[in-house]
Amino acid sequence: MQQNQHQKFMQIAIALSENNVKNGLGGPFGAVITKDGVLIAQSANTVVPSNDPTAHAEIAAIRLACTALKTFDLTGCTIYTSCEPCPMCLGAIYWAHIDTMYYANSKDDAAKIGFDDAFIYAEIDLKLENRKLQSTRLLAQEALSVFTLWEKSESKTRY
Amino acid sequence: MQQNQHQKFMQIAIALSENNVKNGLGGPFGAVITKDGVLIAQSANTVVPSNDPTAHAEIAAIRLACTALKTFDLTGCTIYTSCEPCPMCLGAIYWAHIDTMYYANSKDDAAKIGFDDAFIYAEIDLKLENRKLQSTRLLAQEALSVFTLWEKSESKTRY
Repeated sequence: MQQNQHQKFMQIAIALSENNVKNGLGGPFGAVITKDGVLIAQSANTVVPSNDPTAHAEIAAIRLACTALKTFDLTGCTIYTSCEPCPMCLGAIYWAHIDTMYYANSKDDAAKIGFDDAFIYAEIDLKLENRKLQSTRLLAQEALSVFTLWEKSESKTRY
Repeated sequence: MQQNQHQKFMQIAIALSENNVKNGLGGPFGAVITKDGVLIAQSANTVVPSNDPTAHAEIAAIRLACTALKTFDLTGCTIYTSCEPCPMCLGAIYWAHIDTMYYANSKDDAAKIGFDDAFIYAEIDLKLENRKLQSTRLLAQEALSVFTLWEKSESKTRY
């Protein structure tokens, strides 16, 4: 695909982010997902209007793309995001098996305007006992028996 | 709250994970969210039946809890998850401002039965250029101007 095609899709992602700010709809983030050069899904960040802290632009766009393509596997797709993904969205990109990402703002840019991306990246690197999130292990044996059941199951679908 | 109360909520999370496996519904994961000792939301992993790669048990439970409480901020809530969260779900827990987590299986247990958690944790730690996900920066200046707009905006809601 030509470079100006990539720029076109990123411009849509940035326009979604700008529209969010200008209309007071939510955070300054937008994302577009394409496959074979065709736009499949697009979304701004909808955390505030949808009361959903997971509704970052990338995750919202992934959900829409999966609905459109009727699959949980976006192998072969490309994501254009107006900002480098936070760990939640980066994780979602991997789980969706998206191959290629274009991003505009960096996570440091996001940190500078008050978003927690850099804080969360730092927390993930800490051991459980050193994180701000209080974490306690409980009933490990009971839960492990379910993993054993999963391993033996013949009806499982991997994702 | 008494220890047996915490165990009771974790048992519900584990039962959700077990039900998923026994009925071939999806991955062996369940999560429960409580506030002040009261169960607010619960969910199994629904990636496969809902064609949504982001529908891990923790994210699904966070969405349901936010719907129930009509907020994007779960400060004061506790999550009980049958497995240590992947980076996507750990990020979601931070964005939701959940304070306390109880988990049963570890991320290493998840890796042993074929889930990508450990792989994604490792990828996040790599520089962009070394990740399996191909990442390219594009139109940084255009996107940064929207962040400036956000900073100046008086109608923004922080989350």
